[in-house]
Amino acid sequence: VTTGTEWLVDAEGCRPETLRDLDGMRRLCDRIVRELGLHVVGEAAWHQFPWPGGVTGLFLLTESHLACHTYPELGTATFNLYCCRSRPPWAWEERLREHLGAARVTVRRIVRGPAAEQAPALTSRREETQP
Amino acid sequence: VTTGTEWLVDAEGCRPETLRDLDGMRRLCDRIVRELGLHVVGEAAWHQFPWPGGVTGLFLLTESHLACHTYPELGTATFNLYCCRSRPPWAWEERLREHLGAARVTVRRIVRGPAAEQAPALTSRREETQP
Repeated sequence: VTTGTEWLVDAEGCRPETLRDLDGMRRLCDRIVRELGLHVVGEAAWHQFPWPGGVTGLFLLTESHLACHTYPELGTATFNLYCCRSRPPWAWEERLREHLGAARVTVRRIVRGPAAEQAPALTSRREETQP
Repeated sequence: VTTGTEWLVDAEGCRPETLRDLDGMRRLCDRIVRELGLHVVGEAAWHQFPWPGGVTGLFLLTESHLACHTYPELGTATFNLYCCRSRPPWAWEERLREHLGAARVTVRRIVRGPAAEQAPALTSRREETQP
């Protein structure tokens, strides 16, 4: 038994101007929601911070949640997608290159809940752990 | 350079009635926010699902976000706390035993952003990975 799967996605080398474009980030997250067939409860919460102008988006989903944070000063965007029911994989790397100009995308998949220990974290790049 | 630290906390063996008590879960999350000196932007979003009555809470923070999901049917609650600035540790295990009657609490700490690969996931219980 698990309570679902969480994807932790970190995109580097993105265009700073795209990371501070609230409407563009909204379109990207709306695409994630649409293409994965997710269901938003209420309205997504979006906020733009003062210069350098990073944005945060939070979606309360019937499937759990989607969160997005951008750091224009670092050229980085991070995403959390936590789904308590099975979802097909999404082409994070390809889509984030397309929308954000990302040079490198790291996807980590983590199983949540009681079975978490039996189900290790997986990353699309490489694995490192220490005790 | 990182974009912060994320704590993934999974609590098992919790009292089901506590996990469907929206006000109680709100008090717990408000305590996390208060004791860690976090700053909420706008209002937290809370939602209670139909029976078995799990709840979700999402907090947009100047420090990034806090998310909470409960699964009364599994006796499980999960928390994500993503902080883009350094925070002292919080006594997750002790507090979740106290508030939720948790029998077991797993805390995983994950570094986000460009340095993610250099900084492995840490868990308070044990480590497992696979390629």
